[in-house]
Amino acid sequence: MQDPLKNIVSLCKRRGFIYPGSEIYGGFANTYSYGPYGAELKKNIKDLWWKFFVQFKNDVVGIDGPILLHPLAWKASGHVDSFNDALTDCRQCKSRFRVDQLIEAQLNKDIEGISLSEMTEILKDDKVKCPKCGQKDFTEARHFNLMFQTEMSKTDKGHNIAYLRPETAQAIFLEYKNIIDTMRVKIPFGIAQIGKAFRNEITPGNFVFRVIEFEQMEIEYFIEEKDWKASFESWLNEMKKWCDLIGLNKNKLHDKEHDKEKLSHYSKRTVDITYDFPFGTNELYGIAYRTDFDLKQHQEFSKTNLEYFDNVLNKRFIPHVIEPTFGVERTILALLCDAYTEELLENNETRTVLKFSKHIAPVKIAVFPLMKKEDLKKMSLDIFDQLKKLYKVEYDEAGAIGRRYRRQDELGTPYCITVDFDSLNDNSVTIRERDSMQQKRIKIDELESFFQKEFKI
Amino acid sequence: MQDPLKNIVSLCKRRGFIYPGSEIYGGFANTYSYGPYGAELKKNIKDLWWKFFVQFKNDVVGIDGPILLHPLAWKASGHVDSFNDALTDCRQCKSRFRVDQLIEAQLNKDIEGISLSEMTEILKDDKVKCPKCGQKDFTEARHFNLMFQTEMSKTDKGHNIAYLRPETAQAIFLEYKNIIDTMRVKIPFGIAQIGKAFRNEITPGNFVFRVIEFEQMEIEYFIEEKDWKASFESWLNEMKKWCDLIGLNKNKLHDKEHDKEKLSHYSKRTVDITYDFPFGTNELYGIAYRTDFDLKQHQEFSKTNLEYFDNVLNKRFIPHVIEPTFGVERTILALLCDAYTEELLENNETRTVLKFSKHIAPVKIAVFPLMKKEDLKKMSLDIFDQLKKLYKVEYDEAGAIGRRYRRQDELGTPYCITVDFDSLNDNSVTIRERDSMQQKRIKIDELESFFQKEFKI
Repeated sequence: MQDPLKNIVSLCKRRGFIYPGSEIYGGFANTYSYGPYGAELKKNIKDLWWKFFVQFKNDVVGIDGPILLHPLAWKASGHVDSFNDALTDCRQCKSRFRVDQLIEAQLNKDIEGISLSEMTEILKDDKVKCPKCGQKDFTEARHFNLMFQTEMSKTDKGHNIAYLRPETAQAIFLEYKNIIDTMRVKIPFGIAQIGKAFRNEITPGNFVFRVIEFEQMEIEYFIEEKDWKASFESWLNEMKKWCDLIGLNKNKLHDKEHDKEKLSHYSKRTVDITYDFPFGTNELYGIAYRTDFDLKQHQEFSKTNLEYFDNVLNKRFIPHVIEPTFGVERTILALLCDAYTEELLENNETRTVLKFSKHIAPVKIAVFPLMKKEDLKKMSLDIFDQLKKLYKVEYDEAGAIGRRYRRQDELGTPYCITVDFDSLNDNSVTIRERDSMQQKRIKIDELESFFQKEFKI
Repeated sequence: MQDPLKNIVSLCKRRGFIYPGSEIYGGFANTYSYGPYGAELKKNIKDLWWKFFVQFKNDVVGIDGPILLHPLAWKASGHVDSFNDALTDCRQCKSRFRVDQLIEAQLNKDIEGISLSEMTEILKDDKVKCPKCGQKDFTEARHFNLMFQTEMSKTDKGHNIAYLRPETAQAIFLEYKNIIDTMRVKIPFGIAQIGKAFRNEITPGNFVFRVIEFEQMEIEYFIEEKDWKASFESWLNEMKKWCDLIGLNKNKLHDKEHDKEKLSHYSKRTVDITYDFPFGTNELYGIAYRTDFDLKQHQEFSKTNLEYFDNVLNKRFIPHVIEPTFGVERTILALLCDAYTEELLENNETRTVLKFSKHIAPVKIAVFPLMKKEDLKKMSLDIFDQLKKLYKVEYDEAGAIGRRYRRQDELGTPYCITVDFDSLNDNSVTIRERDSMQQKRIKIDELESFFQKEFKI
């Protein structure tokens, strides 16, 4: 079967969006490195998210917490005891696998909730083969915690172990008290954060869909318990506005309500926003009603009073929490899948275009001199120098103009500006729009106001 | 002795800039968490850096590489074998110390370059006391690698160990080949990156000056060997322009040339830009000529050809590298030290102001209704909604207007807008400038263009 992501992965590598991590060393454990256009795309997504969910809202504040938190926080959150995958090794070829994935793929059985010894029994039944070498000789199923663990050289009252955070949420809960003590916030209010998290997983691939090192954009919205249903709906709605803002195709987005029986221990309602990826419909974003579980746990483990005092109602309570969560890498992948287009042109050539929304496109404008003549180059570079103060702009003088358009199409650049010989007389340039390929003439003096209008949110 | 940073640390905590990490659990190993204003300040610094060093330059591209790199990369870079601190434990109270710091503080001796056994001899001489418990009973000096180490659950051809990157530079060198293969760059060109790095250090404190988890903003600029001196000077100059742009006090900045004997093994010239911190003059930024050391090492260890082909000169060579490097946390600390001002006002009150440059101030504009009247509030919120699309704006209706000004002064907000009863008739508002405290009247219609001019770079 052909990899349904093949064209996208290939374009990402070829055009400097996403490279395999540590590639000169043969790659490393499903890590990826964002090349120049990928880094701009990622930054645009994060910046726009911060703008939309923090800057635009009077009831959300942002934080930037550490990756290394006190290890007791992960005891309180439940991660130390139960954030596990059951794994087994093939005794012959030493490959390691997730037991649930082996059994589901080969026996078509959902083994959620069964014990390690029951898993081992199934593996010993001789029906499951090693996908690598074909042998049927597995070790017993064992639990592996998904948190990366490290050791501090500073001995700190016996807390030598530290974990790389497996989610950003707990870093927010740890600052909840500082925020209510110093920020004059009143419930309902939210704390937002963008940052890295790490999971020591055996990843099934699918490019950047599931990776061991990833970024989350998350809000913990603190409410009174009675308001949870309305707040949940309102945040789900905000999430859809976000999907709209970044230009995701509505027809590929779906709500998936979690069954009551399968909800996480901390949640009373969870909805995934799924996206029709080329390899199947899968979770893009999620929203969970986490109740007061986390704050209560941290109150107990830290022995710190985490009650909120409501001076209008004159009462103290532990707030409940609605958590909208967004994966940066999955956003990138969904945007790439949506944007990737191959068009047959009139001349029978195929044009590859990334039809990104203007707001997230890695390069906003490209500036070309029609030919490599000094006066055209100078005028083009002047325009580049003027516009680069406001936008990510690229200057390109190499090759035929048609090829330069194609290059920018593959990057998803919404506008190309061409300086030609007429420009020298009429102080005007040609602007070409990516999707329609329509061209129009515009005065150089009016470029700034034209783009300010086009890129307005 | 009073902590010279006391007022700054206290303001940072009180006003939501920087909180001690994992504070409800009693803190954790000199980690810090950036509160709402700290997170905005940090984001502004990183965004402006990216704008100045990537967006504005036609010869620099950005990347965003992983924290987890192939472990062989750290063997190649020299970090596995020689990125160590010599440590000793007090046998009585179990505290751990850096041997060089103990000996320097108590015997006033610089022990750089001496062996572990020589250090142990000095410790056994009974002249050095444990700073915690006063005993003179230390273990032998041992080397501790400064890289945090973790283990991958995925067994990957024997490479089970992974390190958290102790610097961002190597993640750039690993992508050098992908960049020259896919980005049509020509030497000289630079690759820039902003990202976290981790060092398992026993930190001497000084707030965020030295922390185990920190962010670097770095450029590796690839050149021909013959150009290194000119390129070094030109980048040193760019770094000074940056210091100027973010508003650092020139009188507190100094160049410190590294002595030839003390240069790192990979460097032929290094200059620190130092800053007069309240606890002493210390390294803020650095620039190093790294020669072709790193690329040669990676070529050898990865067995990948890392030569650059220059099609004008028609020759192949391994480029040399100039590396300007900037610490995000140190930038924040220097900016806070520079900005922190206590002024005695005419009425004998003290006003605390953070005199941040407009470009990095966490909040750009605050909007106040003079009083809590519905029509004033509505007009203020309309202005807030209009300006928040462009800037980080705060709306505040609580307390006397004078107190609201003071609050914004402590955050370093350059402009406060007040909507009063006249505003309802003349559609004008009062703008108050932070440093001069001068007020002037301006039409609401003209606010956008006023601020666009004020915040232009």
